[in-house]
This record gives sequence, structure tokens and C-alpha cells, in this order.
Amino acid sequence: MRDKLEKLKSLVGDAFELRRVAAVLDWDQQVGMPVAAAANRARQTSLISSLAHEKLTSSELGDLLAYLVPEMKNLDPESDEYCLIKLAARDYKRRTKVPAGHVAEFTHLTSLAHSKWESAYAGSDFLIFKDSLTKIFKMRREYADFFAPYDHVYDPLLDEFEPGMKTASLIEIFAVIRPLQVELLREIAACPEPDRSCLEHKFAVDKQWQLSRTAAAALGYDFSRGRLDSVVHPFTTSFNLNDVRITSYAKEDNLSALSATMHEAGHAIYEQNIAVSLENTPLASGVSLGMHESQSRLWENLVGRSYAFLQFFYPKLQSAFPVLQSVSLDEFYRACNVVKPGFIRIAADEATYNMHVMLRFELEVAMLEGSLAVADLPEAWNGKMEEYLGIVPPNDSLGCLQDVHWSAGLIGYFPTYALGNLISAQLWEACREKFTGLDAAIACGDFGELRGYLCENIHRYGSKFESMELLKRVVGSGIRPEIYIKYLREKYSAIYGL
Amino acid sequence: MRDKLEKLKSLVGDAFELRRVAAVLDWDQQVGMPVAAAANRARQTSLISSLAHEKLTSSELGDLLAYLVPEMKNLDPESDEYCLIKLAARDYKRRTKVPAGHVAEFTHLTSLAHSKWESAYAGSDFLIFKDSLTKIFKMRREYADFFAPYDHVYDPLLDEFEPGMKTASLIEIFAVIRPLQVELLREIAACPEPDRSCLEHKFAVDKQWQLSRTAAAALGYDFSRGRLDSVVHPFTTSFNLNDVRITSYAKEDNLSALSATMHEAGHAIYEQNIAVSLENTPLASGVSLGMHESQSRLWENLVGRSYAFLQFFYPKLQSAFPVLQSVSLDEFYRACNVVKPGFIRIAADEATYNMHVMLRFELEVAMLEGSLAVADLPEAWNGKMEEYLGIVPPNDSLGCLQDVHWSAGLIGYFPTYALGNLISAQLWEACREKFTGLDAAIACGDFGELRGYLCENIHRYGSKFESMELLKRVVGSGIRPEIYIKYLREKYSAIYGL
Repeated sequence: MRDKLEKLKSLVGDAFELRRVAAVLDWDQQVGMPVAAAANRARQTSLISSLAHEKLTSSELGDLLAYLVPEMKNLDPESDEYCLIKLAARDYKRRTKVPAGHVAEFTHLTSLAHSKWESAYAGSDFLIFKDSLTKIFKMRREYADFFAPYDHVYDPLLDEFEPGMKTASLIEIFAVIRPLQVELLREIAACPEPDRSCLEHKFAVDKQWQLSRTAAAALGYDFSRGRLDSVVHPFTTSFNLNDVRITSYAKEDNLSALSATMHEAGHAIYEQNIAVSLENTPLASGVSLGMHESQSRLWENLVGRSYAFLQFFYPKLQSAFPVLQSVSLDEFYRACNVVKPGFIRIAADEATYNMHVMLRFELEVAMLEGSLAVADLPEAWNGKMEEYLGIVPPNDSLGCLQDVHWSAGLIGYFPTYALGNLISAQLWEACREKFTGLDAAIACGDFGELRGYLCENIHRYGSKFESMELLKRVVGSGIRPEIYIKYLREKYSAIYGL
Repeated sequence: MRDKLEKLKSLVGDAFELRRVAAVLDWDQQVGMPVAAAANRARQTSLISSLAHEKLTSSELGDLLAYLVPEMKNLDPESDEYCLIKLAARDYKRRTKVPAGHVAEFTHLTSLAHSKWESAYAGSDFLIFKDSLTKIFKMRREYADFFAPYDHVYDPLLDEFEPGMKTASLIEIFAVIRPLQVELLREIAACPEPDRSCLEHKFAVDKQWQLSRTAAAALGYDFSRGRLDSVVHPFTTSFNLNDVRITSYAKEDNLSALSATMHEAGHAIYEQNIAVSLENTPLASGVSLGMHESQSRLWENLVGRSYAFLQFFYPKLQSAFPVLQSVSLDEFYRACNVVKPGFIRIAADEATYNMHVMLRFELEVAMLEGSLAVADLPEAWNGKMEEYLGIVPPNDSLGCLQDVHWSAGLIGYFPTYALGNLISAQLWEACREKFTGLDAAIACGDFGELRGYLCENIHRYGSKFESMELLKRVVGSGIRPEIYIKYLREKYSAIYGL
């Protein structure tokens, strides 16, 4: 048993390490690789990924698991060993159900689809992308069918990003928040819009970077075990507990470097604080996209757009950007929290963001089920935009072509953004109940209690427990969507005087 | 045959790709990785290296080679296929002769030895390093014995860095240049030293970086397929033909950023100009350390320290650093070419550099043979310094502890630096014979003829032919040490009026 466990650790540990090597290759590509080397790098990344896949689908691993899974009953379900076997078995099952030929074909398809999407996006012409997207949905459907029987055809796809989560639960959750968010937006729309002209200045890029570093360090991102670089599309990546890197971007036209950096710092603080005992195993990684997004959005929004945080940080902004010196904290706070339905998900405010997610979820489920033809996507998209946000995109680049995800085959990914929002509010509420002086501490730039709470209850566990189980351990329940709605309503009631 | 060849290509190609992935990990570590992650990164690098080693010593490869090697007689010896089989067979033989246990033990030894060396170097206390170095020479001797019978015990070590080169040849070559360089240095020492006070200023680091980029680009380093970063110890690394990166360093106290960058650009221009047909095979790499160093030192010294180059580049230096505006080109040229025996190899001028190399070669051969006890190294070192350069280091950090190489187990590496010098002069002479207007072109900043000559005759072949064979193809002979001596004598006669 001991021996087999050690063998398992070494085998899945090596595969995990290979995936992290692939992450280094990817980071390097996005941060500074010569563009000319893209094809060569693809070869290297795909070699490393296939070596990892080989190990993770090997008969050696199958034999080890066949021995170890029945032994789990003799292990403490809280133990690292139990959780490792469980995770390895789940991953092995998922990987071995899908024929290698299908995986290769899908990789090929998405690589072509990406360039089709790029052209379609650039020319705002959905027709260029239509056939690729049709094939992608067809192949994702085939993929799902490898996992039949299932409760819902979308379940096997969702499970890749949010293990354990069911489509039925999502539908239920969204059914709760959809009308409540629509109603909130209606009420807000009836109020006069706060003045956001104080954000319409030029903000020097180098100062934005300095402030971004200051903010990330203040939240608790450990720069001695990471670094911050500039990229086109910000992301966070972990190579090991001592090397978790964040990226961001700065544009003179707005202050979004700051929120982007705080968002990524949220992801990174999660990865940096996983228990050292899990190192070099697949457990040393955030558990799901939803839980990860709960961390990034908690720091970006619930902290970063709060009045308390600005009490601490706004004076720094004012001293970096003298144009803000005549703008009061109250004015600035309101300007940062204007609610305004827009076409673009990644630019959406807290009150509208989930609407963008639900729209995508409903459309991808419909296309997967076949109740919506891919050819009819633009029309369906625009219809839902009007229904949920009251606006219709003037073209598909501002509509159904805006996100890269589908071109990469990422179906089942979008809902995790909304789950992140909902979880973040639950964690926020629980933490504020425990630490009644949280706002006061944040206003002084002290994030220790909040970070400590998240480390203690979420971060250190890595991937030991599925996200909903982990949430239940902290807050005593699964997703309770009404808490997010309550958070929104309280926040915007104060700002808009609802 | 076709099938087996394709299999060979794919197998050694994958192993080659893995080594390039390890190179990415190493580049990242040296350029910007958090120091805290060193142990984790070592784990990743060693995993990748062992996967490459596994492939390169696999019975699958052995079987392929057992079939293909006898078939070589049916192939054109100039063909890529012939050269690939030859290289793969040589590498397979070398790797499989050494037991895995020995490799692992040596890796462990050198990793410990490195930190011993660091302490010894910091405290200038050879005793701290003595036992480690003794073990290193003992194990390198054992390593050599795996290749018995040999003509010289040093041959198997030298062969790792300069395939095909024999110790007997080195001894012969050094026997020619040693007395001639000693005599030249004696004559130079009798002359008044040129004034080098124009180099004793502060030179802004950012301007040095700009000039370094300008110089590298002018020589022909293609920035669209590479990049330049700042590190502690400059190096060049290739991930593929479209991504060959150089590194350099700049210090306010001197202008060495420029020569360091031109040196690395020389390595990189070699790697960037290997024929595309060799891509993704082990042939797509410079053939030996000596040939590589011939390129780096040619651009750094024979070009970079020439009067013609300064005719082109000195005005740029003057405009960047106004303090030089009162210094004539002639004065500056002489200041850049002062000959002065010193303790440190990497700071040595062209006339003394080889003496440092010969000293190391003789000492490592003696320690390997056992005719010199490692404990007696400092004394032997200092004795040779006095004999060759007329100076004695005041401590071991300025003497036998100055280089990292031995602590890393690199025995047989040093001579390639001298080979590089000798080859560079032969290529330089041959190219100048062919293009009589070369100096005039260089004085105008036109390096096309020289670079074209090197690409055509050296670069494009990658590792197809062993270094001495390649040299013979270009200049009609192997090493002719008198050509380097002639180059030195002509250059310094003009400067010192010998």
C-alpha cells in the first residue's frame, strides 16, 4: 500500500510537473517570445502535453488505481492520500474515456477554428466562423457522449471546469438570480447616472504599474515568490508554490491596470497559499475555475471597488494623478461603481456581469442540445441581449464573436465566472460576520484578516475537496445565490438611493 | 529504411525538443525567475532532462541504429540523413557507455560541489572546495575509463565539448602557440603602455543597452527571431531557429556591455542561420564549443576591436557619451586594445587569453592523470601564472577558484575557448582573402559579406560535420595555430610599434 501510494505520487507528480513546464512555455510565449516562433513553440508545448497525457492514461497508472481505489475505505477521507487517489482516479477515468483520435482531431479543429475566429472577429463577420463553430459543437457533443449516461448532455463539459457541479444546479441557480438582477437593473436604470467624468483623463502608464504593484503587494501577493509582467490578455499562472506569476496590462485611457492586477493577484494569492504538504502533487492547484474566480473577483470587486478599500488607496491615486485631487472620495467611489449595460462581458460592471454569463450559458446549452442551430446564434444572442440588458449589439464583434472561448473549444467554461461571483459574496459575508472590524481594517490597508480567512478556509486545501464541498465546509451550504443579490442590492441602494 | 529513418527523426527529434524545453526553463531561471523557486525549478529541469535521456538511451533507439548504421554506406555522406544517423549513433554510444548510477551520483556531486565552490570563492579559501574537487576529478577519471581504451585519458572528456578532437592534437597546437605568445607578450611589455584613461569614466547603463542593441542588429542578429535580456553571467540559448536569445550585462564603470553583447550575438548569429532543413533534429545546433567560440570571438574581437569597426561605431559612442568627444578614434582604438597580463581569464585581452586557457588545460590534464594532486592545485596554478604571465595572484579567488567550470564537472571545456580563438583567425584570414574590401565595408557598417561568408561556410551546416572537418572544408586545413599568432603580431605591431 505504502509503495503503491509512493508510485502513484511519483507518476501523477511527474505528469503534474510536466503540465507546469507547459505552463512555463505558455507564459514565456505570452510575455515575451518572438512571434516568429509560434509554430515551434506549439510543437514543444504539444510534446510536453502529450508526455503528460501518456503518463496520465498509462496502464501503469490504471493498475495502481485499480489497487488503490478499493483501499480508500481504509484511509481518512480528510487525508492528503485519500484526496490524491480520488483526484487521480477521476482524472484517469475522464482521460481514458475519450479516444486519443478524438482528442487529436479536436485539437486540430480548435487550432484552425482559432484563426477563423480571429478573421471573423476582425471583420465582424460571423459567417467566417460559422462552420468551425458548428463542428466544435458537434465534436463537444460527441465528447459528452463518451460519458453517457449523464443527467444532462452539458454535465461532462461543465465537469471539466467545475468538477462535481451539475447543469441542473446551474439552471436552478440562474433561475433565482436572473429575474432579481433584471429587476435591480431596471430600478438602477430609473435613477440618474453618477458622474464618471473623473475617470475620463489620461493616466500615465508607468504610474499605473507602480500603483498596481503597490496594490497587489498590499493585498498579500508575495512578489518574492512571483512576478508581474505586461501582456495583451492578463492571466495568472503557477509553476510551483514558489513561483506564481501574474500579468496585467495598462492603458493610458483608463485605470483598468489596477483592477486587472488585483483580479490576477486574487488568483495568485490562492495558488501561493496552498499547503506545502501538497507540493509536487496535482492537489497543489486551485480546485476549480469557479472557486478560483471567487478569489479573483472578491479581491477585484468586493474589496477593490469598496468604499473601505478606496479610503486606503484613493489617496495614493490622488498623489500619483494630480487631476484627481479635486475629486472627492465619494465622487470617485460612485464613478467606479456606475452600472451601465454594455455589449462587452469583460467590461461589465458587477450588476450586469452575470447577465452576460447566463446568456452564454443558455446559448451554449441550446447549441449543444441542438435546439438552436449555430447558424442562428447571432440572432439568438441579440435577442437575449435585448431581453436581459435592453441593448442590441450593432455588430457581431460586439456580440457573439467577442469572446475567444468557443473557438478554443471551451464550452462549459462561462458559468464558472458567475459561480465565482456568487461564491465570492458568500465568503465575503461569512468573513465579515466573523470579523466585524473588517471594513475598518481594509480602510487602513490591513488585509490580513480577510486573507488569513481565505487561506485558512480555502487556499491551503488546494484541490483536496470539490468546490461545493469546500464551500459547505466554510459557509455551511452550497451556492446561495440570494447572498450575491443581497450584496448587489445593498451596494447599489447606497450609491443610487434605490 | 524510409520508415526507420522517419522513426529515428521523430525519436531523436523529440529528445532534442525536450532539451530545448530544458533550455527555456534555464533561460527563465537566469533571466527572471524568483530565487525562491530554485529547488522547484531544478526538479522540473531534471525531469525534462531525464525524459530526454530515457529516449536517447532507449532500446528502441538502439534497435533503430543497429539497423540504420550499416545502411549508411548506401547514403550520400553529405546528406542530412547520413549526418543525422552518424550523430545519433555517436550520442547513443556515449550515453549508453555510462551507467545511470554514475550519472546520478555525478549530478549529485556537482550540485553539492557548486555550493562548496561558492563558499570557497567568497572566502578565497581553497580548502573548502578541495575535497569536492578531488571527488570530481576522481569521478571524471572513472567516466573516462568507461570509454577505454583511449589514446589519452582526457580524450573522452574533450570529446563531449569538441567531438572528434584529440588531446594529442591539443598538446601539439599549444606547443606551437605557447612560446610564440610568451615572446609576443615579452616584446609588448617592453613598450610604453597606451593611455586608457578615456575608458575610465562612468557610462550610463541605459545608453550602453541601446548601443548594444544597435551593434547586435548591425552585425546581423535578427531581433525578430530573438531577444536581449539582462543577466549576471551572459549566455546565448536557442529554443529553435526562430527563437535564439542573447543576454548581456551592463555596468556603469566600463563599456563591457558592448563587447559582451557582440560576443553573444556571434553565438546567436550562428544558431539563427542554421539551414531550415535541419530544423527539429539534433543537427540544428552549432557543432562544437570551439566552433561556437570562433564565431563569438570573431565578432567580439576580430571585428569588434578592429579599427574598421570603430570607424563605423565610435561616432555612435561619442554621441552617446559626450566625454569621448575629445578623444580621437586612434586614441580610443589603442585604449581598447591595451595588452596587460591580469589574473582573471574573462577579463583577459586577445594577446593573453590563450595563456589562461593553456594553464587550465595543463592543470586539469595533470589532475586527471594523477600527476598533480588536487591539494597542490593553488601552488601549481600560481607557478604557471608566474611562468606564463609574470604575475602571481594574491589569493585563490583571483587564482584557481575564479572559474565556476570545474565545480560543475566541466573538465575538457576550457581548451575550446582557445580553439575558438585559433579558428576565428583562420576564418577571418580566409574571408579577407576572398573579400578584399572587407575592412572598408565594415568601416561603413556593412557586415553582409562577412556574415554571408560565415553562414555559407559554417552556420548553415549546423552539426552535420565535425568541427575539424568543417574547418577543412572552408580553409583547406585543420587548426593552423600560426595564423592566430600572425594576426596578433600584426595587430599589436601596429599598436605598440614592435
